[in-house]
Amino acid sequence: MSRALVTLLTDFGTADGYVAEMKGVLLTGAREAVIVDVSHDIAPQDLEAGRLALARYWRRFPEGTIHIAVIDPGVGSGRGALAVESQRRYLVGPDNGLLSPALLAPGARVVRLGVPPSASPTFHGRDVFAPAAVHLANGQAFDALGAPVSDPVIRRTPEPHRAADGSIEGRVVTVDRFGNLITNLIGVRGGEVTIAGHTVPVRHTYSDVNAGEIVAVVGSSGLLEVAVRDGNAAVLLGVARGTVVALRAG
Amino acid sequence: MSRALVTLLTDFGTADGYVAEMKGVLLTGAREAVIVDVSHDIAPQDLEAGRLALARYWRRFPEGTIHIAVIDPGVGSGRGALAVESQRRYLVGPDNGLLSPALLAPGARVVRLGVPPSASPTFHGRDVFAPAAVHLANGQAFDALGAPVSDPVIRRTPEPHRAADGSIEGRVVTVDRFGNLITNLIGVRGGEVTIAGHTVPVRHTYSDVNAGEIVAVVGSSGLLEVAVRDGNAAVLLGVARGTVVALRAG
Amino acid sequence: MSRALVTLLTDFGTADGYVAEMKGVLLTGAREAVIVDVSHDIAPQDLEAGRLALARYWRRFPEGTIHIAVIDPGVGSGRGALAVESQRRYLVGPDNGLLSPALLAPGARVVRLGVPPSASPTFHGRDVFAPAAVHLANGQAFDALGAPVSDPVIRRTPEPHRAADGSIEGRVVTVDRFGNLITNLIGVRGGEVTIAGHTVPVRHTYSDVNAGEIVAVVGSSGLLEVAVRDGNAAVLLGVARGTVVALRAG
Repeated sequence: MSRALVTLLTDFGTADGYVAEMKGVLLTGAREAVIVDVSHDIAPQDLEAGRLALARYWRRFPEGTIHIAVIDPGVGSGRGALAVESQRRYLVGPDNGLLSPALLAPGARVVRLGVPPSASPTFHGRDVFAPAAVHLANGQAFDALGAPVSDPVIRRTPEPHRAADGSIEGRVVTVDRFGNLITNLIGVRGGEVTIAGHTVPVRHTYSDVNAGEIVAVVGSSGLLEVAVRDGNAAVLLGVARGTVVALRAG
Repeated sequence: MSRALVTLLTDFGTADGYVAEMKGVLLTGAREAVIVDVSHDIAPQDLEAGRLALARYWRRFPEGTIHIAVIDPGVGSGRGALAVESQRRYLVGPDNGLLSPALLAPGARVVRLGVPPSASPTFHGRDVFAPAAVHLANGQAFDALGAPVSDPVIRRTPEPHRAADGSIEGRVVTVDRFGNLITNLIGVRGGEVTIAGHTVPVRHTYSDVNAGEIVAVVGSSGLLEVAVRDGNAAVLLGVARGTVVALRAG
Repeated sequence: MSRALVTLLTDFGTADGYVAEMKGVLLTGAREAVIVDVSHDIAPQDLEAGRLALARYWRRFPEGTIHIAVIDPGVGSGRGALAVESQRRYLVGPDNGLLSPALLAPGARVVRLGVPPSASPTFHGRDVFAPAAVHLANGQAFDALGAPVSDPVIRRTPEPHRAADGSIEGRVVTVDRFGNLITNLIGVRGGEVTIAGHTVPVRHTYSDVNAGEIVAVVGSSGLLEVAVRDGNAAVLLGVARGTVVALRAG
């Protein structure tokens, strides 16, 4: 049998040693597991960024992969701790919407993880989620992890809507490292886009415009994005998450 | 036999390729070793942050794990290079106190690594520490690495003391990525804490207060910490490493 | 046979999930491959920093290693996509000079990767380069990846030259995380160095001067570098990439 794959997404950074503690727990419990770092650089408590990143990668990994995701402002409170089986992958993390992409897929099954009395109330990543991943990495039953949950917390990307003038009005849902503005407009095949007072046609790729010019393209996850070629659109346009983007037939 | 686990802690960042050079040396010498990144984001030359991170994780890993830790302002000088066997884990790194958590554990054994003439005087991580880890990863004898050292450099967390007014006076010893203020107060079971003019009771977890409020809790390594729920205590209280924290019976 | 080693160098950061998508593609296609993170912290589109990092590590890894490197401002344009076999290592990445260190080594072979119509025009890392690495990781033939390329784009470090006053005039080619100024002066055995109005002799290592003093040493890749002991030379001297450095016989 192939070794278990366990991915890690957190907002912990690495310098404090918290992630390393989790890795130590994982490897102590499942000595042959393969740990894959997704990111520890999510901005502190930025659930939305974590959810959108997770949406990108969780199904790209092989069947059987165990995804740990811990962005957990409510740690130690009454918020639940979840394990999910969805599309033949597993996920563990807090019940705060972070795991929504997997929860919303057809056939998802969800259980609530117990929290042992010895668990630190400030570090469920180490004491609740890593141990659940160890359980799964060792091939133990998903159902043994806890009782079914029927109403996990769901977070959704806001839907675009049709404005009075006939345009489709969307939003910037995240800004990536390059300053590209990722929107909630999906299935776009043309037209023109207005954002922050600028109107540009939808193109095929960044290099369809000159350096320093604004370009709208369908990005690699199918969402419309607005970029500045060889530049940072967020900085140059003064745009952040939440900014309105209007799409009109070209 | 399971493959060797080798962890890496440095202050090198990753962008310059120094860490990759170390990984290349490790995998060339021990092709089947499993490399685990702890962190490369320790602030440059911040031995104290490195030591405190190491204290968190070194014993969480399986027996036999080889921990490389390189924060090394004195590279190329007369400072020694060490290998340590402690609690059935191995550690290699400079003799500057970074490895103190393992050196202080009962039964620790320490040897001084030789520095080959060909070693770069500016990069012992690649030319001294990684090769020592290769030696251990290949199952070769610890004692063959060098002559015993009886007086390695030790760094200790400062001890709290009792103040004239009967309170216990501690210090902030590190600030984590969330802005939580980690102190040297251990074994705290209640009472109230004063820091930067604010006095708060010791609670169970962050969510025992409202968003934006100060909270003191026993953190996941047993040290008292002061946080702001859903906020950054270091920024909001204007507190840094070294700030005094007073604990009084509640 | 040992498992395939696949290294990753990008300017993607990790927080957006792009790197995780690539890792998912790699592990789905080559379930037993070992992924080694080099860096995802190259400044956006900083080809030069990527090239210099790659020069450091690519030959340090075992024979057969597959290096993926994606810093790719021209993604989706007409720029080619390459696979390289050089010194018994493989590399895949854009045809923009990033892979020059391997391309310039004797005996390098280069082919042009096809871009499938389904590939996202904004993310060849996931849809072109990771699949090529999967092909190689599964032991399939290098030559099957594409048609030979005879004139890949090459980027070179600028050469120092002799100035009118007899000194050798070089440049700072990169600044590392410590603020050390890495120059293009190679093979230096002594003499004195002038930079930003300061003149210092070439020493053996950083600790040959006192804290806060400027020191010139031959760094770990053989290039002369200028540092400030226990300080950041780039900040303290106000120097950046491109600054002139003059070397004179001592």
